[in-house]
Amino acid sequence: MIIVLKSGPTDEDIVCIEEHVRRAGYEPHTIRGEVRTVVAAVGDEAEHASLVSLKSLDIVENVLPIQKRYKLIARETHPETAKVDVGGQIIGGGTFQVIAGPCAVESLEQMVEVVAALNGCGSAILRGGAFKPRTSPYDFQGLKSEGLRILHETKSRFGLPVVSEVVRESDLEKVGKVADMLQIGARNAMNYSLLERAADTGKPVLLKRGMAQTVDEWLLSAEYLVKRGNRNIVLCERGIRTFETAVRNTLDLSAVALAKKECALPVIVDPSHAAGRVDLIIPLAKAAVAVGADGLIVEVHPHPSEARSDPAQQLSPKQFSLLMSEIRPYVELSGKKMPDMRS
Amino acid sequence: MIIVLKSGPTDEDIVCIEEHVRRAGYEPHTIRGEVRTVVAAVGDEAEHASLVSLKSLDIVENVLPIQKRYKLIARETHPETAKVDVGGQIIGGGTFQVIAGPCAVESLEQMVEVVAALNGCGSAILRGGAFKPRTSPYDFQGLKSEGLRILHETKSRFGLPVVSEVVRESDLEKVGKVADMLQIGARNAMNYSLLERAADTGKPVLLKRGMAQTVDEWLLSAEYLVKRGNRNIVLCERGIRTFETAVRNTLDLSAVALAKKECALPVIVDPSHAAGRVDLIIPLAKAAVAVGADGLIVEVHPHPSEARSDPAQQLSPKQFSLLMSEIRPYVELSGKKMPDMRS
Amino acid sequence: MIIVLKSGPTDEDIVCIEEHVRRAGYEPHTIRGEVRTVVAAVGDEAEHASLVSLKSLDIVENVLPIQKRYKLIARETHPETAKVDVGGQIIGGGTFQVIAGPCAVESLEQMVEVVAALNGCGSAILRGGAFKPRTSPYDFQGLKSEGLRILHETKSRFGLPVVSEVVRESDLEKVGKVADMLQIGARNAMNYSLLERAADTGKPVLLKRGMAQTVDEWLLSAEYLVKRGNRNIVLCERGIRTFETAVRNTLDLSAVALAKKECALPVIVDPSHAAGRVDLIIPLAKAAVAVGADGLIVEVHPHPSEARSDPAQQLSPKQFSLLMSEIRPYVELSGKKMPDMRS
Amino acid sequence: MIIVLKSGPTDEDIVCIEEHVRRAGYEPHTIRGEVRTVVAAVGDEAEHASLVSLKSLDIVENVLPIQKRYKLIARETHPETAKVDVGGQIIGGGTFQVIAGPCAVESLEQMVEVVAALNGCGSAILRGGAFKPRTSPYDFQGLKSEGLRILHETKSRFGLPVVSEVVRESDLEKVGKVADMLQIGARNAMNYSLLERAADTGKPVLLKRGMAQTVDEWLLSAEYLVKRGNRNIVLCERGIRTFETAVRNTLDLSAVALAKKECALPVIVDPSHAAGRVDLIIPLAKAAVAVGADGLIVEVHPHPSEARSDPAQQLSPKQFSLLMSEIRPYVELSGKKMPDMRS
Repeated sequence: MIIVLKSGPTDEDIVCIEEHVRRAGYEPHTIRGEVRTVVAAVGDEAEHASLVSLKSLDIVENVLPIQKRYKLIARETHPETAKVDVGGQIIGGGTFQVIAGPCAVESLEQMVEVVAALNGCGSAILRGGAFKPRTSPYDFQGLKSEGLRILHETKSRFGLPVVSEVVRESDLEKVGKVADMLQIGARNAMNYSLLERAADTGKPVLLKRGMAQTVDEWLLSAEYLVKRGNRNIVLCERGIRTFETAVRNTLDLSAVALAKKECALPVIVDPSHAAGRVDLIIPLAKAAVAVGADGLIVEVHPHPSEARSDPAQQLSPKQFSLLMSEIRPYVELSGKKMPDMRS
Repeated sequence: MIIVLKSGPTDEDIVCIEEHVRRAGYEPHTIRGEVRTVVAAVGDEAEHASLVSLKSLDIVENVLPIQKRYKLIARETHPETAKVDVGGQIIGGGTFQVIAGPCAVESLEQMVEVVAALNGCGSAILRGGAFKPRTSPYDFQGLKSEGLRILHETKSRFGLPVVSEVVRESDLEKVGKVADMLQIGARNAMNYSLLERAADTGKPVLLKRGMAQTVDEWLLSAEYLVKRGNRNIVLCERGIRTFETAVRNTLDLSAVALAKKECALPVIVDPSHAAGRVDLIIPLAKAAVAVGADGLIVEVHPHPSEARSDPAQQLSPKQFSLLMSEIRPYVELSGKKMPDMRS
Repeated sequence: MIIVLKSGPTDEDIVCIEEHVRRAGYEPHTIRGEVRTVVAAVGDEAEHASLVSLKSLDIVENVLPIQKRYKLIARETHPETAKVDVGGQIIGGGTFQVIAGPCAVESLEQMVEVVAALNGCGSAILRGGAFKPRTSPYDFQGLKSEGLRILHETKSRFGLPVVSEVVRESDLEKVGKVADMLQIGARNAMNYSLLERAADTGKPVLLKRGMAQTVDEWLLSAEYLVKRGNRNIVLCERGIRTFETAVRNTLDLSAVALAKKECALPVIVDPSHAAGRVDLIIPLAKAAVAVGADGLIVEVHPHPSEARSDPAQQLSPKQFSLLMSEIRPYVELSGKKMPDMRS
Repeated sequence: MIIVLKSGPTDEDIVCIEEHVRRAGYEPHTIRGEVRTVVAAVGDEAEHASLVSLKSLDIVENVLPIQKRYKLIARETHPETAKVDVGGQIIGGGTFQVIAGPCAVESLEQMVEVVAALNGCGSAILRGGAFKPRTSPYDFQGLKSEGLRILHETKSRFGLPVVSEVVRESDLEKVGKVADMLQIGARNAMNYSLLERAADTGKPVLLKRGMAQTVDEWLLSAEYLVKRGNRNIVLCERGIRTFETAVRNTLDLSAVALAKKECALPVIVDPSHAAGRVDLIIPLAKAAVAVGADGLIVEVHPHPSEARSDPAQQLSPKQFSLLMSEIRPYVELSGKKMPDMRS
């Protein structure tokens, strides 16, 4: 870390800072410049305590950390991207996975129609929410246990691996019995307690980026999970909150490129929650492939205008089929392949 | 709601929309304009399902809700601000409450020094975190149960009401045994499951605004709590995330003015987390008083440079004493008063 | 427009609103609902004055416009994308144009080296700034007239069309003598006076999106230009300002998809200013192709570490050559083609 | 500046960086740490070129500047706040100035009514726009020369100093003939060419913060003005663009506290453009006084619902009178005074 002092520090001031630095386990190197004096604290920032506390001293102008704070997921130490096995389907290998399904599980009929839409398209993992966190308490919150039951029945019939969101620790066990992968939604991306408990199940976790999380903070949320000994983590960019109102969230594809570069976990993209509108999903999905994502998660509903949540962003089966055929050549060009079609 | 159709709808299109509107329980009124045809759906939006789903239809350009979605907390129906009793101290009456204490409980000695700093200043409620949600898993996460024990001991000795954060449902009982008021932090502001369980304890809840929550969404989070039958809710503005990097968060005092106008719950301000730096806390605290806040929550540490979390934003006892004397005349001018000093 | 009244309006209130509506040239249709009464103002919002002024009346809760405010550039009325001729190269037809060159013109030697780098790569338009708006008055502001002279000399030698930024009306003539296309930078995207004068030259204009402009506002800036009778306008997305600090700006590719859908002007992407760092430019460029952009503008410098402005985001000739070969198959897949290589 | 190298630099890498540092006029001090090696470049960053260019080298991870980039306006070197004389009224001394008037000059009758509203209230400077930059080309753009004529007539009759916006260099002379202070609006806050020409007139300049400018960038815009030899600059915070949609802009009072601390220019606040709605102006104005602002600029219109621009945010004379009486005691408490009332 670099401690920048205010102009004109006395010798005593400098000695005081140096002592603070030493006490924290670093070696101080003081450099007196014409305009500013800085004290460099030499040592592994991941090992020792932060010196940011020194900002509270009157003589300190700023404290600048120089290391990244995540290490278990850093590509620097893990050059190869992790492969995460979700019920037999691999995310993060050379396969481009498209996870698809309705925002919320509404009925068995709905799920049967959805699976029919997925089949033959190259989508091999099913999504569907039983527990839905909604901004208003008056909106549909999911079928809960009944939703899990339907999800279980769907899975038994068709054999597809399933991703489903978990919003509270006490539901982890029941969701985990049905889901092959636990989804942590954007609203819970900094609910570290839920993150740790989800990691402890040993199941693969799909970690969405919080709507106001920097990439650095998002990777630190992933570090929370991996620190519990679970490396089966997939990151998901789903748009961030900005001043733009024409879309629900602003899809941040530079975050995908950056996450792929900085960390060794697979990264997928959710164009449905980003756009919040069907008409932009196909171009954004193509861009996600091109930027290097390892997959997509998209919302598909057999009858979008009757959907009980997020209707404006769910694709119809026909639209989904178009999406899949449009992205396929981009996937191939990017050097990945889509899972074998089912018949 | 107003459904705006794309240009040139056919008669069939309009009939289709009108049927959708009727099916949802509204009465449709169609107005054909030169450029756009709109269908007004007449009925109580709080009673019937949203029609936003119609956005998924090809012929619909936009759907505009016209009612606010919260009602239990709306000032329209509750003209008087609620008074929330926190261990004998009232928030939301004519008293301006300053909740103060360290970011994290670190030791009994620390807490004793903090209480000494509070005494005689006009601060009558103590804060202190035992469970700290931190962006990095390598940062100090609070003393947990030991922290609660110290908080309990401090409370027994000095008789001050205590506010403490809760980050997981399974801790609610233990935190509730010590704390007079449960704090929901910014990172959990949309963790609706935790909100509902916290409300169910019947205890007063301090609800911080999420760092990317609009005022409307923040009030809906409060509606979640009140819908469980608990009206002892205090809102807390603590800064939002913007592009500005000179402060930790951007304090949004228009949100305070707006929340006071739209809803009947008391609103306090946290200048410590907003600024993230000691030197701006006093001017922001004065502004918070002037804009109409019902109180403050500020961080005070006997020795900020040794604090184990958020050192740059914790006031020393001397700085805190200055803050309190500086804001006192503003509080009086605003027509409120500070609690009687203790001797 | 829809005027939403506050609860419980009197008959007189409604008559008053209806008169306001009629006076502005609209036909009022009043719909009394259980909870809210709304007055629909029927008429072409592009013809008549806005009724937003009614928000200032005590009895009005909200005024909702329902039409888009741009019409000259709307795809609704201009289904085909405009083709803009820049010194013989077409932007907006089936060709994918890559405009490339240094941030600032620094010397003739530099420009000669840059042109050598462009040649054979599929880049047929040269960029280079003579006037540089810089955040700090102490940073290099461009070579100004000397820069234009060098640009002119480069153009004479190699015959490439040239794009150069204009930052003040009084420079329009001199920049226009050299440049085949005038660039309006992000900082001037709402400098409407400069926009109008630039349009009046009749030259093609490259309009960058302001760093805090919504897509709607950006298109209205374009409408300013087209309203002067100049349809040779190309839009350029270059990233918006958000809370993310790992990149200089957040590239908003949904804005590209949206602008392509809503308006009939070509749209290109500037990954250099978005990322602000070389290592993300190639993946972002591929994503821009895939999302449907009509071209790119990228910064190339023969010796980036010696660049006098924006060094961190300028590609070396070798990196540029790699970029061009990496995007070529994506361009072909998207159904466009790159200009013929020069030998 | 601090140059942080990537892990494992060779001796040659370090020598190469040290040479770059020396060539730019700094003295290099290299510190080899366990995890990262840093090179501190010692020297006045305001004198020498930036080393940020080194970021383009493969071996460099980051470059951290440690000095502020403005110096002419820094409070560090100018402890006392400048006093700016606007036609006999001082901004920045102990007087709290409220600049008031309509968004746009519409007629002489309007201006006469406005002045009547100002009189006796403690507002001693008139505002009124003749040139209005508007987001849509179809909105009212001001009366232009006719507006200036009315402004001149108003000034002759009543003797009030006048502030008016200038949006293009070629208007500077004509606006300057009437206005005692030139306003640079938010949309032109980074139109450095206009800033320099405005400064060159020698007239006082009111510099609004750009809607996406950091405080640091805003102060650098002010530095542009002062660097031309004109110290009669007043800063104006008017809200920034965030994700919040309930207000037009988010008023950032921490920016006011920060600007007052960092720089020696007076700072005023525009609650009208921030809120964009009349009902929040009084609480925000009080907060602005309390945070330490040197004045306000507010919009007042004799008949807001008939205003030709920004109707929702203009106060009626009655509302303005209430504002002035409500803020007066806060002004006194803050140790400032309002100008003597006129009779």
